[in-house]
Amino acid sequence: MRIYDIIAKKRDGYELTDEEIGFFVRELTNEKIMDYQATALLMAIYIRGMSDREMITLTKEMAVSGDTLDLSELGITADKHSTGGVGDKTTLVVAPLIASLGINVAKMSGRGLGHTGGTVDKLESIRGFKVSLSPDDFISQVKKIGIAVVGQTGRLAPADKIIYSLRDATATVGSVPLIASSIMSKKLAAGSKTIVLDVKYGSGAFMKTTEDAEALSKKMVDIGKAAGRRMAAVISDMDTPLGTNIGNALEVKEAVAVLRGEGSEDLKEVSLTLAANIVALSLGDDIAAARKKVEAALESGKAYEKFKEFITTQGGDISQIENTDKLPKAKTVYQLLSPESGYISKMQAEDIGSASVILGAGRLTKEDTIDYSAGIILNKKTGDKVQRGDVLAELHTNNSGKIKDAEKLFLSALSFSSEKPERNPLIYKTIL
Amino acid sequence: MRIYDIIAKKRDGYELTDEEIGFFVRELTNEKIMDYQATALLMAIYIRGMSDREMITLTKEMAVSGDTLDLSELGITADKHSTGGVGDKTTLVVAPLIASLGINVAKMSGRGLGHTGGTVDKLESIRGFKVSLSPDDFISQVKKIGIAVVGQTGRLAPADKIIYSLRDATATVGSVPLIASSIMSKKLAAGSKTIVLDVKYGSGAFMKTTEDAEALSKKMVDIGKAAGRRMAAVISDMDTPLGTNIGNALEVKEAVAVLRGEGSEDLKEVSLTLAANIVALSLGDDIAAARKKVEAALESGKAYEKFKEFITTQGGDISQIENTDKLPKAKTVYQLLSPESGYISKMQAEDIGSASVILGAGRLTKEDTIDYSAGIILNKKTGDKVQRGDVLAELHTNNSGKIKDAEKLFLSALSFSSEKPERNPLIYKTIL
Repeated sequence: MRIYDIIAKKRDGYELTDEEIGFFVRELTNEKIMDYQATALLMAIYIRGMSDREMITLTKEMAVSGDTLDLSELGITADKHSTGGVGDKTTLVVAPLIASLGINVAKMSGRGLGHTGGTVDKLESIRGFKVSLSPDDFISQVKKIGIAVVGQTGRLAPADKIIYSLRDATATVGSVPLIASSIMSKKLAAGSKTIVLDVKYGSGAFMKTTEDAEALSKKMVDIGKAAGRRMAAVISDMDTPLGTNIGNALEVKEAVAVLRGEGSEDLKEVSLTLAANIVALSLGDDIAAARKKVEAALESGKAYEKFKEFITTQGGDISQIENTDKLPKAKTVYQLLSPESGYISKMQAEDIGSASVILGAGRLTKEDTIDYSAGIILNKKTGDKVQRGDVLAELHTNNSGKIKDAEKLFLSALSFSSEKPERNPLIYKTIL
Repeated sequence: MRIYDIIAKKRDGYELTDEEIGFFVRELTNEKIMDYQATALLMAIYIRGMSDREMITLTKEMAVSGDTLDLSELGITADKHSTGGVGDKTTLVVAPLIASLGINVAKMSGRGLGHTGGTVDKLESIRGFKVSLSPDDFISQVKKIGIAVVGQTGRLAPADKIIYSLRDATATVGSVPLIASSIMSKKLAAGSKTIVLDVKYGSGAFMKTTEDAEALSKKMVDIGKAAGRRMAAVISDMDTPLGTNIGNALEVKEAVAVLRGEGSEDLKEVSLTLAANIVALSLGDDIAAARKKVEAALESGKAYEKFKEFITTQGGDISQIENTDKLPKAKTVYQLLSPESGYISKMQAEDIGSASVILGAGRLTKEDTIDYSAGIILNKKTGDKVQRGDVLAELHTNNSGKIKDAEKLFLSALSFSSEKPERNPLIYKTIL
C-alpha cells in the first residue's frame, strides 16, 4: 500500500477502504508519511468529502493511534464536549452536577488557544489546583468522589494532534468529516460511555448557521453510536457570549454563582440541558424526569457541595470558592460606556473573545502566559436597551495600556438598532 | 498577504490574483512557505483548475524565480522540448540540423529519471564530451559554431524544481496547468526566442490521448506567446518507441545514422517536422519552404558536419561518431525471440522503456549511475508481421542477471493479433 495511491484515489473522488484509512493514520503517526503528503490528502478530503463509513473509520483509527483510557471499572461514566464558545464555562457547572447524581466524570480537558482559556486554564485560576494527576490518582479520585478533571495528555489521539496542526496551517479546518473525526477521536479515546456534545452555532462559533451545526452534530452522534457510545448533541446559540463573564477567574466566579442558584439564566439553561441529556442517557430516565433530577440537584446545593469537594480534593484553595472575591483580581477595571442609545442588535462573540485575549485572558501562541484575573464582564447583552453613557461592560486587566485596543475591538463587535431585535433560540435542537 | 488565505481561495474554486500567485512562487522559493502548505494548494489547483491568466502568471513567476538566460546578443535563437518518450533522440538530430541553417541553439537539457537517460546522458556516452560549460564558454561556443548543449543548472526556475518534487510525491502531477507551467517556466528562463514543443501522446507518453495532448499543447503555446516567444507544438505518437534504439550510446548511434541519411524513418520524420517548424518560425519561411531547407541540410550532410563540429568543440571523441561501433558496447547482447506468430498490435512504450532501465540504461533514483552501453534495439515494431522464434529485439547489458526480468517486462508490453493493426498517425497535428 502506498500513500501516493491513496491520495490519487481521494483526489479523483473515490471512497477509501478501511485498510487505506488505517494505513494513513498509522503511518502518519509513525512519521512514515510526510507532512506534505498528508496535507495533499487532507485537501482532497476537504474538497471531495468522505462517506459516513470513511469518516467513522477515520475517527476510530485516530482514537486508537495513541493511549486509550479504559474506564470500565468506573461503571457509569459520562463526558461532555463543547465545540468552543466565548464565555463557555458550562463544564464547571455540568461536571459536578452530574457527579452529584452518581455519574462518574473522568474528564480530560484542553487548554485554550485563540479565544479565552480552556477548562483547565479556568481551574488553574484557583490557587493550588492541580491539573496534572498520575493515571492511578486520576482513576482513584473518580472512584472516591466521582469526579476528576485534568489536562489532556500528549498521547491521547496523537494522530488527531498531527492532523489538526496541519489542517490549521492549510485551510482545511472547515470540513465536516475532518471536524467530526477530530472531536470524536479524542472523546472515544477518553473512554466515557456517555458523550454529550454542546455544538455551538452563530457568530462566535465555528458553525455559523443552525444547518451547519445540525449537520456536524448528526455526524458526530453517528460516529459515537457506531463506536458503542450513548450519544446526544445539543445545538446552542453562540451569537452572543454565554453568561456575563469572560476570562478565567471571572468565569469560575460566574459558574460558582450558578451552582449556588444565582448567576446568568442562559448559562444555567444550557448547563441544565446538557446535564439532563447526560442523565437521561446514562441512567435510563426519560428526558423530563432527568431534567427534574438535575434541577433538584442544583437547587438543593448538592451540585455545589460536589464542586467544592472536587476543588478541595484536587488541591484548590476552597476559600476562593466560598468567597469568590478572593479569586485573582485585576488592578484595573475599566468601565466601557455606550457610545449610542438603542437596542443592542448584535454582539459578535468572536471579537469579544478576542478583546478579552487582548486584556490578557487568553493565549495567541502556546508559549503565551495567561493573566487569570483578566477578562470582561458584560453588563448588557444582545436585546438589551441602553442609553448613551450606560456601562456596557467592565474590562479587567493588569495591562492598562491594552484597554484602548480592547475597547475598540469590543465596540466594533456591537451593532445597535432602534427596534428590539429578535434573538436566536438559546437551545436550537437536541440531536439523539 | 497570507498563504493560508490563498489556499482557502483556490480550495473554494476562486481565481487567484497575479499578486497572490507571485507571492506563492517567491515565498516558496525563499522557503517561507512550508512544503505542507504548498502541497495543499497544489491539490486544490489540481482539483479546481486554473484559468489561462492564472496559468500564464504562474509560469512567468516560476521562470523568474531563479537565473534567466539573456540570449539577446545571439540574435536568432531556438529551443525544442519533448514531453518525454521512449527512444526519443530527436534533439541529437534537430539541434545540429537547425544550427546548420544559421539558427543558434543555446540549449540546456535535463538528465533522465524513470525511463531512459535525457539528452545530456546520451551525449555523455561519447568519450570526453563535457556537459558543463561556464556561462561565458557556453555563450561564446554558440557565437562561434551556433550550437552548445549543456546540463541544466540548479538555479534555472528553482520554484519549478521545488513544485515538481512535491507534485511527484503527492499525486498532483497530472494537471494541465501544472504540467504546462512546469515545462514552459524552464523554457522561458532558458531564453530562446523560438520554442518548438514535441508533445507525445499514447501509451509511452504522459498524455494518453490526442485530446489530452492537444489541450496541453494549446496551453503551452498560449503561455509562450503571452511571454513574447514564437511558438509551435508538434503532437507526435508515442504508442510505440521512436526509432529502433533505446539506451544512451545506442540512441547516439541511431541519431548519427539519421544525420548520415540512414536510420529510422519515424525518427527522421519527427526530426524534420520539428526542425521545419523551428525554421519557419525563426526565419519567417512558410512551412513548405522550411521543410525543403531542412531536408536539403540533412541530405547534403551539412547537418552531420555541424553535429561533428559540435561534438568536437565540446570535447567529445569524434572517432566514436565517425565509427559508432567505437561507442560503449555491452558485454552481453541477448536475442529476444517472439513467443507467437502474427502481427504486433501493441507495444506499450512505457514498459519497454522500463525494461531498458532494468538493463542499466536509466536511473530509478538520482543517485543511480547509468550504463551507457545498455539498452534495447527493436527489430520489430507495431504493425510488423512476425513468426514465432523471430528475433523481436536485442537486449544489451553488462548485468546479465537482469535479462530475464527485462525480457519478461518486454514481452508483457506486446500484444499480437492475426490481422494487421491500424497504426496511429506519427504526426497527429501541429499547434501554432
